[in-house]
Amino acid sequence: MAHDLRTEELKNPIDVAEYLFRRLHEVGVRSIHGLPGDYNLVALDYIPKAGLNWVGNCNELNAGYAADGYARIKGISAIVTTFGVGELSAVNAIAGAYSEYVPIVHIVGYPSTIAQKDGMLLHHTLGNGDFNVFSRMSRQISCAVSLLNDPHEAAVLIDNAIRECWLKSRPVYISLPTDIVQKKVDGDRLKTPLNLSYPDNEPEKEDYVVDVVLKYLHAARNPIILVDACAIRHRALDEVHELIEKSGIPTFVAPMGKGAVNETFPNYGGVYAGDGSNKGVRERVESADLVLSIGAIKSDFNTAGFTYRISQLNTIDFHSYGVKVRYSEYPGVRMNGVLKKVCQKMGKLNIEHGPNPNNEIPEVELLSPEPTITQAWFWPRLGQWLKEGDIVITETGTSNFGIWETRFPADVKAISQVLWGSIGYATGSCQGAALAAKEMGIKRTILFTGDGSFQLTAQEVSTMIRNRLNPIIFVICNDGYTIERYIHGWKDSYNDIQPWDYKALPAAFGAPKDKLLTYRVSSKRGVEELFMDREFSSGDTDKLRFVELVIPWDDAPVALKSTAESAAKRNAEAAT
Amino acid sequence: MAHDLRTEELKNPIDVAEYLFRRLHEVGVRSIHGLPGDYNLVALDYIPKAGLNWVGNCNELNAGYAADGYARIKGISAIVTTFGVGELSAVNAIAGAYSEYVPIVHIVGYPSTIAQKDGMLLHHTLGNGDFNVFSRMSRQISCAVSLLNDPHEAAVLIDNAIRECWLKSRPVYISLPTDIVQKKVDGDRLKTPLNLSYPDNEPEKEDYVVDVVLKYLHAARNPIILVDACAIRHRALDEVHELIEKSGIPTFVAPMGKGAVNETFPNYGGVYAGDGSNKGVRERVESADLVLSIGAIKSDFNTAGFTYRISQLNTIDFHSYGVKVRYSEYPGVRMNGVLKKVCQKMGKLNIEHGPNPNNEIPEVELLSPEPTITQAWFWPRLGQWLKEGDIVITETGTSNFGIWETRFPADVKAISQVLWGSIGYATGSCQGAALAAKEMGIKRTILFTGDGSFQLTAQEVSTMIRNRLNPIIFVICNDGYTIERYIHGWKDSYNDIQPWDYKALPAAFGAPKDKLLTYRVSSKRGVEELFMDREFSSGDTDKLRFVELVIPWDDAPVALKSTAESAAKRNAEAAT
Repeated sequence: MAHDLRTEELKNPIDVAEYLFRRLHEVGVRSIHGLPGDYNLVALDYIPKAGLNWVGNCNELNAGYAADGYARIKGISAIVTTFGVGELSAVNAIAGAYSEYVPIVHIVGYPSTIAQKDGMLLHHTLGNGDFNVFSRMSRQISCAVSLLNDPHEAAVLIDNAIRECWLKSRPVYISLPTDIVQKKVDGDRLKTPLNLSYPDNEPEKEDYVVDVVLKYLHAARNPIILVDACAIRHRALDEVHELIEKSGIPTFVAPMGKGAVNETFPNYGGVYAGDGSNKGVRERVESADLVLSIGAIKSDFNTAGFTYRISQLNTIDFHSYGVKVRYSEYPGVRMNGVLKKVCQKMGKLNIEHGPNPNNEIPEVELLSPEPTITQAWFWPRLGQWLKEGDIVITETGTSNFGIWETRFPADVKAISQVLWGSIGYATGSCQGAALAAKEMGIKRTILFTGDGSFQLTAQEVSTMIRNRLNPIIFVICNDGYTIERYIHGWKDSYNDIQPWDYKALPAAFGAPKDKLLTYRVSSKRGVEELFMDREFSSGDTDKLRFVELVIPWDDAPVALKSTAESAAKRNAEAAT
Repeated sequence: MAHDLRTEELKNPIDVAEYLFRRLHEVGVRSIHGLPGDYNLVALDYIPKAGLNWVGNCNELNAGYAADGYARIKGISAIVTTFGVGELSAVNAIAGAYSEYVPIVHIVGYPSTIAQKDGMLLHHTLGNGDFNVFSRMSRQISCAVSLLNDPHEAAVLIDNAIRECWLKSRPVYISLPTDIVQKKVDGDRLKTPLNLSYPDNEPEKEDYVVDVVLKYLHAARNPIILVDACAIRHRALDEVHELIEKSGIPTFVAPMGKGAVNETFPNYGGVYAGDGSNKGVRERVESADLVLSIGAIKSDFNTAGFTYRISQLNTIDFHSYGVKVRYSEYPGVRMNGVLKKVCQKMGKLNIEHGPNPNNEIPEVELLSPEPTITQAWFWPRLGQWLKEGDIVITETGTSNFGIWETRFPADVKAISQVLWGSIGYATGSCQGAALAAKEMGIKRTILFTGDGSFQLTAQEVSTMIRNRLNPIIFVICNDGYTIERYIHGWKDSYNDIQPWDYKALPAAFGAPKDKLLTYRVSSKRGVEELFMDREFSSGDTDKLRFVELVIPWDDAPVALKSTAESAAKRNAEAAT
């Protein structure tokens, strides 16, 4: 085929860069994250030509986080960096996306293929003539690597990378050398859209699995459904919702699955995370005689320190790569088709109801005369203020655990990075999510981060301002790395941070006065007033809202306390 | 040996972490850069115990840059990060240190060896049970990787890593699992300091090379010396200075060698970089019949786009790994010993003098009635203000090229990252350099960065404040990525940045009012007044000084213009 293209005249030749960006547009990308660098500059010229918007982040790590947030809302995203210095700064964000199944197309501007062949001693290299060292590093955290060194393969490699990115829901890496950017490829290929549908399961095998599932389901007296991250990331939410609604089975989410399920459903029961579960949930889940576990990632922070007490003998696991019924494995049978057919053939089931979560503030908090904001008070109160359709982003730290106590209105999209857990992620991710929201007409994007975490990526607020985004940002001011304190070093100075005047930052980052509202809130009453404030709560403003939310340094959500305790124990294991 | 340690009782047992940090203290480290993370917290407890200071950076990339700056001043440095999320954020900084031969000990807090063996689904993993994926990535940019999974090997692996780091002058990677931190090793080993001396050259071979060098040196009519980065990084500056002084040969530096040579020597001739050379330098260097080239790194940005015109037939190359005389190679003969002996046996040489650089402002600039600051005016003017012993850090961008036009007083230490060229580096590096300066009694650390570059790592100013450092920071405000504009995209929006109120940032980062001076200077006269201001210029203040230096967006040093032009040409090669 390379030969054909080489010899045949192209009927509708277009430049490689244009082809790439038009394919990205086709799969739903509208904004490209990243930074300019001399090896990618000419490629950037093609972004507006393909109907795309250039974000222009402050640094590549932030750009990577933002691309992650954007992809979680829009389905896929893209970031452009430059060789070596740019791409390596983004590596942590890309690894996070790999870990948590977020599809990001990472395009790296490379030196020309001639310079590569000659092993030239160029800037942004290790000085050893090795131009493959960085792609080798990225191979560890990418589900496909396409090095566009030959224009005759470029279109195929681009299509392949984008398709893999979508289907595997993980990052891919595309190198774009400066002398390939303007090489010609066959533009007619664009007339055939990429096929992004999952291959169907083999029907006989699928039917077999469905029958097995139904057998156990009909035999169960008090089944429950437990929804986790991979149901979101592998695009099974339609099937999951159908199952929940049609079956009426009590449904719970793992922390990473928070937001996957419409929490206003009458059979929605709350967050299950072993010892960190919502009130009444642990008892109900662990007494179930059948758990339909959908898209589970049983990591430490997703299970409050491996405190699940669900027997595999009572479990059916649904995954993108297969189904497991008790200990019988059915590899290659994707959950989506199975769930759909289970719904169709389900019939009448035994249902024993579960708890119903709410956003009532615990009595002890309500009765407390203390004006200080507590974590136990705040998170349910937040749930009363949230609106249908909101995007809520929480940071690894107190907010990632606090949010377990918030019951969402319908259609809230929650973003958190529970498995990878890189602090600083949430602020970057908020930029991408808020941009996606703007593109999709979603009104409110709300960030909760901590002061320690915010310091890592604070300048992404500048990118929000630059792109005229209007998120609502809460920086929880609690004097340092509270999550670490609960693990080790309660009062040690390494868990302290430099005290900042956080709310001075948006103005320093160039926010116009009439596009910015800042607040500092340190009492429950202050929170009440804030939530009542129409301008603050509005989804129809173009103002960025920035809140310093003061909470005592030694307060944490209950679930964080128990998870941290178990992490400390595991770290110390065998250390004696 | 592992067996001996296992069975024998240790006479003087100490914890692995204490051993590690005491070794770092022994080789000259006094401050440890990095961030806390739950896999490194217990290890951090040992830092004060070993007489070390914990820096507490805002993020890991910045911490890595700071460690790089610290190492360039103190000889070696160390950074502690946490598994996955922390270490990967630092990878770009470590790659830069690898590229530019800067010795950094990178210590990564790992999950316990038990969790690793069990392949547990922990936070900060890719979720695939592979605990070696990140060390595989770092192996590409480290000269040694020591995974401390067995306490019986720990002390040996630590010693080996630190020694390699020093001798190869490149980063090393040490994993420190949580359950190894407090395991016991033989404390008596610390009584024998690490041997950090370079092995001597084989005497007969060395003498042979020296004779060859001397033969060419005596035959030369108008030799010159050209000093570059590796003379600094491989610790040959004593020998180089002896050679320069004793021989009287006209001596030049490559851009990466700037600061290597005492620029007040009568035979110091300025910067040679092909077309980007100081006035009169190109002619002198390229007409020499012998070039003693010491520690050269002939990269594009170090040679103004490969515009060296020196014949190998007239060149003797001195390196850490060998000597090359014309085309005759002598591998394994380290430059230090050879240079020393050449000095001893040199005798009388032919000398034809070269140019003498100065800090006179070009006449056209002096006569110009324009009040605006120009790059051509500023950099020589800066040289008049610099003082003996200053540390001067310049960023990839206009300042890295502008500094070629600044003649230094004696003993100025210059830091720039010409080969790796990661924007944002300089601000992080400045934190580390200023901290090293404080430890060593050096009075002034002066940073020049650009507004675009500053945005990547701005929060490191917070770490400077937290550590009570007093650098002088110049942010060149020229509305974006000027270096990129000269390569491609002259007025394209991707080379624009969000306008910040830069000088509002130190206060937002918590600088006390009485420890901070801020300025905005947009005219030559303003610069004159600033340089006259005693408080601003003082080396004896505890105040951080922060200057917005306004220079037109389209102005750049001449050397940058020609280098950028050549980069643009190379990027476009074969693209037609």
